[in-house]
Amino acid sequence: MITVTLKSGDKKEFDGRIPAIEIAAAIGAGLAKAACAAKINGTVCDLRTVVENDCEFEICTFDDKEGRAAFRHTAAHILAQAVKRIYPDVTLAIGPAIDDGFYYDFDTEKPFTNEDLEKIEAEMKKIVKEDLKLERFELSFDEASDLFKNEPYKTELIKELKEKGEELSFYKQGEFTDLCAGSHLMSTGAVKAFKLLSATGAYWRGDSKNKSLTRIYGTAFPKASMLEEHLTALEEAKKRDHNKLGRELELFTTSEVIGQGLPILLPKGAKVVQILQRFVEDIEESRGYVLTKTPSFAKSDLYKISGHWQHYKDGMFVMGDEEKDKEVFALRPMTCPFQFQAYLNRSRSYRDLPIRYNETATLFRNEASGEMHGLIRIRQFTLAEGHIVCTPEQVEKEFLDAIDLVKFMLTTLGLEEDIQYRFSKWDENNREKYIGDPEQWENTQNFMREILNKTGLNYYEADGEAAFYGPKLDMQIKNVYGKEDTLFTIQIDFQLAERFGMVYTDSNGEKKFPIIIHRSSIGCYERTLALLIEKYAGAFPLWLAPDQVRILPIADRHNEYCESLVKTLKKYSIRADIDYRSEKIGFKIREAQLQKIPYMLIIGDNEVENKQVSVRSRKEGDLGTMEVDLLCEKLNSEIMNKII
Amino acid sequence: MITVTLKSGDKKEFDGRIPAIEIAAAIGAGLAKAACAAKINGTVCDLRTVVENDCEFEICTFDDKEGRAAFRHTAAHILAQAVKRIYPDVTLAIGPAIDDGFYYDFDTEKPFTNEDLEKIEAEMKKIVKEDLKLERFELSFDEASDLFKNEPYKTELIKELKEKGEELSFYKQGEFTDLCAGSHLMSTGAVKAFKLLSATGAYWRGDSKNKSLTRIYGTAFPKASMLEEHLTALEEAKKRDHNKLGRELELFTTSEVIGQGLPILLPKGAKVVQILQRFVEDIEESRGYVLTKTPSFAKSDLYKISGHWQHYKDGMFVMGDEEKDKEVFALRPMTCPFQFQAYLNRSRSYRDLPIRYNETATLFRNEASGEMHGLIRIRQFTLAEGHIVCTPEQVEKEFLDAIDLVKFMLTTLGLEEDIQYRFSKWDENNREKYIGDPEQWENTQNFMREILNKTGLNYYEADGEAAFYGPKLDMQIKNVYGKEDTLFTIQIDFQLAERFGMVYTDSNGEKKFPIIIHRSSIGCYERTLALLIEKYAGAFPLWLAPDQVRILPIADRHNEYCESLVKTLKKYSIRADIDYRSEKIGFKIREAQLQKIPYMLIIGDNEVENKQVSVRSRKEGDLGTMEVDLLCEKLNSEIMNKII
Repeated sequence: MITVTLKSGDKKEFDGRIPAIEIAAAIGAGLAKAACAAKINGTVCDLRTVVENDCEFEICTFDDKEGRAAFRHTAAHILAQAVKRIYPDVTLAIGPAIDDGFYYDFDTEKPFTNEDLEKIEAEMKKIVKEDLKLERFELSFDEASDLFKNEPYKTELIKELKEKGEELSFYKQGEFTDLCAGSHLMSTGAVKAFKLLSATGAYWRGDSKNKSLTRIYGTAFPKASMLEEHLTALEEAKKRDHNKLGRELELFTTSEVIGQGLPILLPKGAKVVQILQRFVEDIEESRGYVLTKTPSFAKSDLYKISGHWQHYKDGMFVMGDEEKDKEVFALRPMTCPFQFQAYLNRSRSYRDLPIRYNETATLFRNEASGEMHGLIRIRQFTLAEGHIVCTPEQVEKEFLDAIDLVKFMLTTLGLEEDIQYRFSKWDENNREKYIGDPEQWENTQNFMREILNKTGLNYYEADGEAAFYGPKLDMQIKNVYGKEDTLFTIQIDFQLAERFGMVYTDSNGEKKFPIIIHRSSIGCYERTLALLIEKYAGAFPLWLAPDQVRILPIADRHNEYCESLVKTLKKYSIRADIDYRSEKIGFKIREAQLQKIPYMLIIGDNEVENKQVSVRSRKEGDLGTMEVDLLCEKLNSEIMNKII
Repeated sequence: MITVTLKSGDKKEFDGRIPAIEIAAAIGAGLAKAACAAKINGTVCDLRTVVENDCEFEICTFDDKEGRAAFRHTAAHILAQAVKRIYPDVTLAIGPAIDDGFYYDFDTEKPFTNEDLEKIEAEMKKIVKEDLKLERFELSFDEASDLFKNEPYKTELIKELKEKGEELSFYKQGEFTDLCAGSHLMSTGAVKAFKLLSATGAYWRGDSKNKSLTRIYGTAFPKASMLEEHLTALEEAKKRDHNKLGRELELFTTSEVIGQGLPILLPKGAKVVQILQRFVEDIEESRGYVLTKTPSFAKSDLYKISGHWQHYKDGMFVMGDEEKDKEVFALRPMTCPFQFQAYLNRSRSYRDLPIRYNETATLFRNEASGEMHGLIRIRQFTLAEGHIVCTPEQVEKEFLDAIDLVKFMLTTLGLEEDIQYRFSKWDENNREKYIGDPEQWENTQNFMREILNKTGLNYYEADGEAAFYGPKLDMQIKNVYGKEDTLFTIQIDFQLAERFGMVYTDSNGEKKFPIIIHRSSIGCYERTLALLIEKYAGAFPLWLAPDQVRILPIADRHNEYCESLVKTLKKYSIRADIDYRSEKIGFKIREAQLQKIPYMLIIGDNEVENKQVSVRSRKEGDLGTMEVDLLCEKLNSEIMNKII
C-alpha cells in the first residue's frame, strides 16, 4: 500500500506502484486532463513517473510555472516534429520552454522566412489534431548513438551525458523522437493554442565561436482565448519595447559592421544621457562625492589582485596572450580597482573619511550573443559608478545615505514604484565562486540585513546572487515583457581594501582597512534610458525630452517670428526647433505628436500680430494662446521641478 | 679645378678633391674650429666628406640644427666610450642626437644609478680632455661582423644594412669604434660642456616586445655658460612640467598595476575636465552641433572599410585573432566611422545638410612605451570630436566656422598665442601611405590652401603630415621643454563618404557623396589639461580651478560662520572648502597658495561680527574686507566671463 498526501492535506491510498498521471485520474478526470507535470515530495516530475513509496503529491497544471514549462516543452517538440516533416535535412539542436513560451534551435541551410513559419505552423496544427501519444524510454549509449547518427548536435549531447554518467532518456510522439529529460504532456492534442512568433539567429550553446543556428520562438496555451489575450498584451508591450520604439524615435541604432551589443546613441538618445549624466554628477557632488576619471582598461596584474582574473575572466575582453605577450590588457568589467588607485595616491587618515568617489564609468562585458538585447544587455555601457571608502563606524550612515540617494533618483525619474529590492546573498554550497571565509560572509550579511531592516525597505532575499566579494542590495526592475533585470546595486565590501592594501590611520595612529561601499545611484545610462523609453512609451518628461518644443509656422511669412521665438526659448535653455516644411498644419501636428514632442507652438497671423503663441501640449492638447514669456516661465518651472 | 659657391654668394676655387673641413679652414680658422657639419648642395654631410665637383657649400656650426645634431651625436659616442671603459660587459644599442641633447641605449645587467652617472660623466670629461681624433672608415660585412661579434645589437644592425645593400661606415675615437652613419665633429675636445640628465628604461627599437634597455639622456654645448643657461631653463620648465606639477597638485596619477599611458584623473583633474567638457558641449550645441555617443570598439569589418585596418593596425589594440576567432574587435583610434553610422541611420537630403555631429569620444592608441609622456602622449584619451557632413557648396563656410570655433576656444583658454598653424599635406613620394589618387590630393590641398588664405591665418606648410585620407590643418603647440605636439586638427575629407556609402539626395533628386570635415575644437581633454597646467603653472583661471575658494578660520569658534559661508558660495555654484586644522593662519595661507587656490577667505572675530570676509587673492594678495554677497558677485562675474 502507498499513501499519497495531497496538497489539501487529504490522503489517498493505492495498492502498489502507480504512475503520477493515474493518481491524477484517481483524484478526478478534470485534473488528469489539465495535468502537465507532477511534484513528488517537492520535486518536479514527469506525469509518467511511477510513485513507489508514500509521498507528498501535487499535480501541476498550466496555472503553475512547472506545468507551463512542461506544456510548452511539448509544444517545442511539436515544432521540431513539424520542421522535420517539412525539411527532413534540417538537423536539431535543442528546444526548451522559456518564460513566455518556447523555442527550438535548428541547423538549416538558410534561415526560415515568415512563409516557412506559416507552413510549419500548419503542420504543427496537424500534429496536434493527430493527438499523438508521447512515450518516454531510455536507451544505451550505443543504441542512442545509432538512433541519432544523422543528428550531430544530439550526438554531441549524448556523448556528454554518457561522460557525466547520466541516463539517456527519450520522448517519442508518432514518427518523431527527441533526446529529452522531460517533463512532457501525455499527448500532443492538449496543445490547443499556439503561435510561432519569430525566427532569429542563435549560436550552438550560445557561443559565437560555434556554428550559427536558426531559432524559432513560439508560445502556447491550453485555450485560444488565452493565446489571444497574450498576443494582445504582447502587441501592447511591443509598442513600448525600447528596442523598437527607441529606434523609431531615433534615440539609438546599431550597426552590423560595428557589432552586436554595441549600440550607437543618436543625437536624441545622447541628449537624454547627457541630461541624466549632468543631473547625476551634480546631485552627487552636492552630496559630497568627488569625481574621478579612470582608464577603461588595465594590465592583467590589476585584475589578479581584485580577483576578477580568477572569477570573471570569461566575461572580459582580453587583449594579448599571457603566454606570448609581455603585457596582457583587459577592458574593465567594473570600476572598483581603478577608483581604488585614486585612494592609494596618498596616505589617508580617519579624518579624511568617508571619501565618496563617483565616476561616469565606461564598462565592458563580453556578453554571449544570444544574451544581448537592445540597450538592456550590451557589451559596453556607462555606469553612474561610485565607491564610498569609510570606517566601520561610518558604514551604516553611508549605506543609508546611498539608499536615500537611490530613492531620490528613482523617484525623480518616476521609476521608484517599478523597483523591487532584492537582498542578494552568497551561496554557501558554492563557496569556490566567492572570496573570503564563511564567518565573514555571515557577519556581513547579518550586518547588512540589520541596516536594511532599519530602512523599512520592502525587500526579499535571494541566495547565490551576491558579488564574489560581498552581498548586495539589488534594484530589480521588469521590462515591458515582464523580464526582470538588475538595474543596479549597493554592496558592502569588507574584502577588497585588504587585497589592494588600502589603509587609513585611525585616531590611535594604527593602520586599519576601511570598508568600501560599491554603489550606483541611477544604474547604467543605457539601461536606464531603455526603461524610461518603456515606462513613458517614448514620451519623456519635459526635462528629459531631447526635443522640448516644436514650432509650427502656418505659412512661410511666419518663419521670421518663429525664429525669434527659438531665440527667446534658448535664453531659458529650452530646446526648440521649427518645422519649416510646407505641409498642412494638421500633418505637422500629427508628426510632432508621433515624435512625442512635449509642446507644439502653432504660429499664424494672429500670433505674429499679437506677439503670442498658440500652445498645444502632447498630453493635454490645445492650451490656448499665451504670451511667450509666460510660456517660457511655465515650461521652465516644469523643467526645474522635473515634473513627470 | 673645383669651384665652391658659399652661402654669401662668394666663390672659392680649389685645385682638386678636398675634404669639407679643409674648405672651412680655407675660409677661416675660426670657422674650422666651430664647424660641426657641412651642407653640400643642400645635403648635410660629414666634415670629412671629400668635395669632388663644383657645388654650393655651407658650414654648419652649433648654431644650426644640423650642426647641433653632429655635435651632440659626438657627445653620445663619448658617453658610450666612457660606459665601455667602466663597464666593459655592457653591450651597445644605439645613440642618436635628439632635440635638446642626446641619448644612448645600453643593455645592462642592472639599471644605472645616479652614482653611476657621476662616474660616467667623470670618464667622459677625461675623454674630452684626451681630445681624441674621430676617424671615419668603411668595412666589408665580414670584417664588420667580426669586429662587433660581441655586440648583438650592432650585429643585428649590420645584417640589416647589408640586406638593404647600404654601406657599413664606422667612427673610431681612441680605443672606441661605433657603427655609425655620422655626422661627427673632428675630435672629442670640442665637447666642452655636457651633462648627463637621467637614466630611464627603453626597449630595443622602441618595441615593448623586445628586450628592455637602459637609456642615458644627456645634453652638450660648446660653452659652459650655454650649458648653465640651458640647465636653468630646464629647472624652470620642470617647475611647470605638468607631469610633475600635475601629480603634486593631485590632478592626476598613474599606477604600475594599471599600466603605462593610462593616467588616472584624480578628483581635481576630473573636475577640470568636467568643466571643460560641459563648456565645449554647450558651446558646440549653440553652434548647431548634435551630440552622439558611440561605442569604443568595433569589429575589424568596420576598420577594413575605413582603411584603418590596412593603414593603422599597429597603432590599435586588437582583441582576438583573425585566423582563429569568428569576430575580431579593436579599440577605436578615431571616431569617424562610428559617427558615420549615425548618418547612415536614415536617408538624407540636401535639406538636412550640413549635419554637425560632436561627441566626447574616448579613443585608444597603442603608443610605444618609450613614446608615452604624462598626459600628453597616452594610450587612452578623450577627444572633443566632431564631423561635419556637408555639400560641396557648404564646405568653405563650415571650414571657416570650424576655425572660428577653434580660435574662440583657444582664446577662452588663453592658449591662442601659443599655437602655430600647420597645413599638413601628403607626401607624393610615399603614395602607398595614402588612399585616393594624386589629382584628388592636389585638388583638395589647393582648395584647402585657398580657404586658409582667406582666413588670414598665419600658417606654414608641411609635407608628409596629412592623414591617410586627406590634408589637415594642425594646431601645433610646444610643451615647457619646447617639444612640439599637435593639439588637434581640422581635416577636409573627400574620400570616406564614398567608402562608407554615405549619400544625400541633391535638389535634382540625384544621389551625391557629401564632403566630411573632421575636426576638434579643443583637442583631447587630457592633453589640453597638461598644456593648461604648464601654461598657468597649475594656477588655473577661476572658472577652471577645481578648488575656487578656501576658507581659513582663525579659531574653532569661527567654524560655524565659515560653514554658512560655504552654503552661500554654493548658491552661486562656487566651489569652496574649509581648512579646519588648528594650524597658524600663516601656515594655512602658504599651503592654500601652494595648492594654487584662487581665493582665500580669512575669518576671525571681526569678520564673524560684521558678517564680512577678509579676502586674499592668490595673484594679488590681500584684497581687504568685504560683504559676502559682494564677494560672490565679484567671483561670479570672474567665472562667467572666464577671466584668464
